[in-house]
Amino acid sequence: MRIALDAMGSDARPVPDVEGAVMAARAYGLTVVLVGDENKLKSELAKHDTRGLDLPIVHAPSDIGMTEHVDAVKTKKDASMNIAMRLVREKQADAFVTAGNTGAAMAAAIAGPYLLGRIKGIKRPALTATIPTAVGRTLLLDIGANADVKPEYLYQFAMMGAAYAQKVMGVANPRVMLLSNGEEEGKGPLVVREAYALLKKSPLNFIGNAEGRDIPKGSADVIVTDGFTGNVAIKLSESLARTLVGFIRDEIKKRPLAVAGAALAKPAFDALRSRLDPAEYGGGILLGVDGVVIIGHGSSNAVAIKNAIRVAKEAVEGNVVELIRAGVA
Amino acid sequence: MRIALDAMGSDARPVPDVEGAVMAARAYGLTVVLVGDENKLKSELAKHDTRGLDLPIVHAPSDIGMTEHVDAVKTKKDASMNIAMRLVREKQADAFVTAGNTGAAMAAAIAGPYLLGRIKGIKRPALTATIPTAVGRTLLLDIGANADVKPEYLYQFAMMGAAYAQKVMGVANPRVMLLSNGEEEGKGPLVVREAYALLKKSPLNFIGNAEGRDIPKGSADVIVTDGFTGNVAIKLSESLARTLVGFIRDEIKKRPLAVAGAALAKPAFDALRSRLDPAEYGGGILLGVDGVVIIGHGSSNAVAIKNAIRVAKEAVEGNVVELIRAGVA
Repeated sequence: MRIALDAMGSDARPVPDVEGAVMAARAYGLTVVLVGDENKLKSELAKHDTRGLDLPIVHAPSDIGMTEHVDAVKTKKDASMNIAMRLVREKQADAFVTAGNTGAAMAAAIAGPYLLGRIKGIKRPALTATIPTAVGRTLLLDIGANADVKPEYLYQFAMMGAAYAQKVMGVANPRVMLLSNGEEEGKGPLVVREAYALLKKSPLNFIGNAEGRDIPKGSADVIVTDGFTGNVAIKLSESLARTLVGFIRDEIKKRPLAVAGAALAKPAFDALRSRLDPAEYGGGILLGVDGVVIIGHGSSNAVAIKNAIRVAKEAVEGNVVELIRAGVA
Repeated sequence: MRIALDAMGSDARPVPDVEGAVMAARAYGLTVVLVGDENKLKSELAKHDTRGLDLPIVHAPSDIGMTEHVDAVKTKKDASMNIAMRLVREKQADAFVTAGNTGAAMAAAIAGPYLLGRIKGIKRPALTATIPTAVGRTLLLDIGANADVKPEYLYQFAMMGAAYAQKVMGVANPRVMLLSNGEEEGKGPLVVREAYALLKKSPLNFIGNAEGRDIPKGSADVIVTDGFTGNVAIKLSESLARTLVGFIRDEIKKRPLAVAGAALAKPAFDALRSRLDPAEYGGGILLGVDGVVIIGHGSSNAVAIKNAIRVAKEAVEGNVVELIRAGVA
């Protein structure tokens, strides 16, 4: 299997990108094509032991910054993100991975010079996040591809999310919920109420409306919402977790005995951090495009890049794209 | 000042309701009119030392349960919530407080048999929550009154929220943000982009779009959104905070040394709990109705009831209703 990695993606590009690629090539025995500035990537690769690993470099003379407008995808045709996408488009790679600008990555897949395009019949692709919950993991989608949605889009998000949960997350009969502002049928804005009706008569294992509280509780395997609400929910969750850890630190620092206690409890906090660490989940898949596209966090470290590549591998092995194609047909 | 308390509001009615009323009457020197089953309230009041306090009882033969449909407000005209609202409507009380069914309380204020109605010119009332942040408190609205909104509603929510932040939260020139899925102007669904344009040319101290992460960070004094997204955000926040504390407990329990450490650190955790405790914030005000209406959490304890009454008192003293009336005019 060949994974095309935008090696100029992360905030600390290309350091964690290259290290993560080396780790993934070794761990999973696959080829990781590093796309970016050839000289930089060569000198970065030289820092690692790459004996026996397949890590070819494909040169891309430019890259797209985190704060650049998504239109950069169209003006910078030779950006690493576009070149990596081209490898997938031309079947020289099985999947695309980046830790770069999320909006630009989505644009590269949907509307860039080397776009993969949508799977036939899919109205709108959706970006996903895998969220750690009290009992496991939940797939939340859309988290930012579509600020405005129609009921049919939400229905398709549910179908795509269920396919992914089944094939990649290994859930036999994924429980699907629709995010709303109340449990009961009939709660929510018009678009949600209409989506409820579509989901209710679908073959999916639709178990009703989720409320905000159901996301951390892990009440469902897949929770469907529009890209506006999903984006607010995911950014709120990440920020709140950090704020709470900060609160705890503040309160501990005020108390000498608590400081001693916290030192003893540190392994427990480390375990918590790893449980919440976005690096463990690698990246979110952009479902609905005609190819495997994984978009990780800009703050990704090498482990996060390695895990994003693992997610790509699992999506390829799970034939997620074909499953969605069959689901629409 | 006279506060009409739906004493049959909370999950554990009327125990915390009555105790909170006693605490508030003593702390703030005001009259709390207890509305509910006269016999129950009398025997509950008898458990407390009420010498020198003014705690009249107004009988209401029925009440509305937490899981009842909001239409119960119309069929149960003599429910405690309706009778308490009538006292405000008939100027026998200055404010209404309940820890009961949120939907029913809003319906009682807006469409019940003793409705207060909207302030002239206000399109839609909005329910608020005061959220503890990394740096203080933020007022979030709407958190559930309006699942579908128009740009003009969001604009009015901002105006009402700013008036409340100024008069009740004591913020001189409240910073107002609009919740969206990106910082930049032009991000978000159409309704948000249009509301942005309205806010930008308003006299409010509008500082731009907020993202989900800005809620816990406390980037603004007032964050405005629709009642769907706000409801998801508030329920997600409460649940995530609980889930994280549960995660920490799980990880500590696995480790004997960590258990010892946690015992030493306990006062710090207790302080955290009090910092996050919804009881500290009492209840949210329903802005835009022609009277002061405070709706607390069903799980309110006596301290939460006391604080909800304090919020009512502050809203009356701050002339919030008049300020909004003047703002619309």
